[in-house]
Amino acid sequence: MRQAGRSLPEFRALRERHSFFDLVRSPELTAEVTLQPVQRLGVDAAILFSDIVTPLQAIGIDVEMRSGVGPVFAHPFRTAADLDRLRPLEPDTDLAHVIEAVRILVKELDVPLIGFAGAPFTMASYLVEGGPSRDWARTKALMLGDPELWRALLDRLASLSLASLRAQVGAGAAAVQLFDSWVGALDPHHYAESVMPASAKVLRGLADLGVPRIHFGVSTGELLGMMGKAGADVVGVDWRTPILDGWARVGPLAVQGNLDPAILGAPWEVVAREADRILDAIDGRPGHIFNLGHGVPADADPDVLARLVDHVHRRTQT
Amino acid sequence: MRQAGRSLPEFRALRERHSFFDLVRSPELTAEVTLQPVQRLGVDAAILFSDIVTPLQAIGIDVEMRSGVGPVFAHPFRTAADLDRLRPLEPDTDLAHVIEAVRILVKELDVPLIGFAGAPFTMASYLVEGGPSRDWARTKALMLGDPELWRALLDRLASLSLASLRAQVGAGAAAVQLFDSWVGALDPHHYAESVMPASAKVLRGLADLGVPRIHFGVSTGELLGMMGKAGADVVGVDWRTPILDGWARVGPLAVQGNLDPAILGAPWEVVAREADRILDAIDGRPGHIFNLGHGVPADADPDVLARLVDHVHRRTQT
Repeated sequence: MRQAGRSLPEFRALRERHSFFDLVRSPELTAEVTLQPVQRLGVDAAILFSDIVTPLQAIGIDVEMRSGVGPVFAHPFRTAADLDRLRPLEPDTDLAHVIEAVRILVKELDVPLIGFAGAPFTMASYLVEGGPSRDWARTKALMLGDPELWRALLDRLASLSLASLRAQVGAGAAAVQLFDSWVGALDPHHYAESVMPASAKVLRGLADLGVPRIHFGVSTGELLGMMGKAGADVVGVDWRTPILDGWARVGPLAVQGNLDPAILGAPWEVVAREADRILDAIDGRPGHIFNLGHGVPADADPDVLARLVDHVHRRTQT
Repeated sequence: MRQAGRSLPEFRALRERHSFFDLVRSPELTAEVTLQPVQRLGVDAAILFSDIVTPLQAIGIDVEMRSGVGPVFAHPFRTAADLDRLRPLEPDTDLAHVIEAVRILVKELDVPLIGFAGAPFTMASYLVEGGPSRDWARTKALMLGDPELWRALLDRLASLSLASLRAQVGAGAAAVQLFDSWVGALDPHHYAESVMPASAKVLRGLADLGVPRIHFGVSTGELLGMMGKAGADVVGVDWRTPILDGWARVGPLAVQGNLDPAILGAPWEVVAREADRILDAIDGRPGHIFNLGHGVPADADPDVLARLVDHVHRRTQT
């Protein structure tokens, strides 16, 4: 349950005193906010508190987390000259705080810790647009209009993701999740040609570490097969695709999903019935991780989340 | 090319002097802005200038078109008591201006006029959320939490859409397009259960008129088959689904699409190549309407749009 923190009063209390990147840069605070949803909800794994853009921030790119908006870059990526700003990540120095946070968490947690990184396309979308977007027009124009520069950009971003995830696993993360949150906006032809190679560089670059690699996106119904082939062990399937149809496209891998998070605002009976519909479809088949199809809405009721976790546990633990 | 107007300087000039609903309420101005993209771009059909919420505005619901936001309702739909505000549409009085605009256009146009209406789900989403939304959480909570009220709401909205489209065809529109712009946010199970019957009421309710019925949405990869079965003659396929895959799901109907409008910002060679990729896939098979997969971006270059129309004409007219 990614982004569960923002629905919790204990997280909001911390955010009143600290900026987003203060939380990211302090190992103790990162550990604290990573633990909050685990303690409150009883989920089966923790996911490192982070953001898609944190490796960019770590190498000195000027980015601000604007409340109610998202990450906003002072200088968006526009030309080949901007490549020079994307220097390689030196984990021991640039990510010392992240490594320390992972070490603290691995000691404190009773459940596995999942490492976090943004995938090259989604990182590029923020960097090229300068912030969140509804149509990713600049990103697509760069991808199709200057494929050479695009490939160079995605290759650098892939190196950042890969270095960050390797460092997290090195410090004790038991699995990783690569977030390509906005890749579902693409034509599958463009995904295959212009994005998949960079995602594969990240995922295949982790193969020797032997940890499960989860590959996440939304609106990715037509991309699921390729997202698996990029080197994932688990592929996220959002609620737009029935879980078994999605699994058929993913092939011989595991799947994660696929409850629509917007449903959490409906009465509890509806939430339980919708969870049951997914579990009934799965019917005990091994290799399914029950999860929401996207992040937890900020206004979700933590009691409903806890009840959902409990409900799924009671239905699946024998 | 829906929403082509907003990219044209002649439309912007009119909008500086008139509010959105002033344009909708004046038959002469509606006709003028409907004609603008036809005259400038040379497209093969015109689509009536309107909005998803105009039938609601026509029955006296308080809605404002806020610049850069979209339609915003003073009093969102919340309870069964709100049903009383959704009185039936009396086309001869409530839509006199629309009927008159259609009559003017049918006289002035050399190409067919396509009637416009929002589909029940998308109309409901604006009315329930009170405006545009990113997750449609209130809409989904109502749909799943109070299915009886939801059905009553969608039934009334279907009646509004149907009455509006019948009036437009009665005045001379040669085809209709039912816009379910946001329905792709749904789980297909919920679409089948809670939305498709209302869309079918609109589309099947037009069958006796004998005009082609186009059914449009985005992110609808998993819904295409049902959108056809709801009673459409043509189903829109957005760029997330390859056009032939989409057509296979649509079945023995025509398809419309599927160029990603975000691509219009790329260099012309890219736009032409991407259009060619769609036309190559179609390979002359009858029953394909070349179009964008969504509305024209406000910052699109009209010259690129005109060049694209010309390019498609040269490739398809023999």
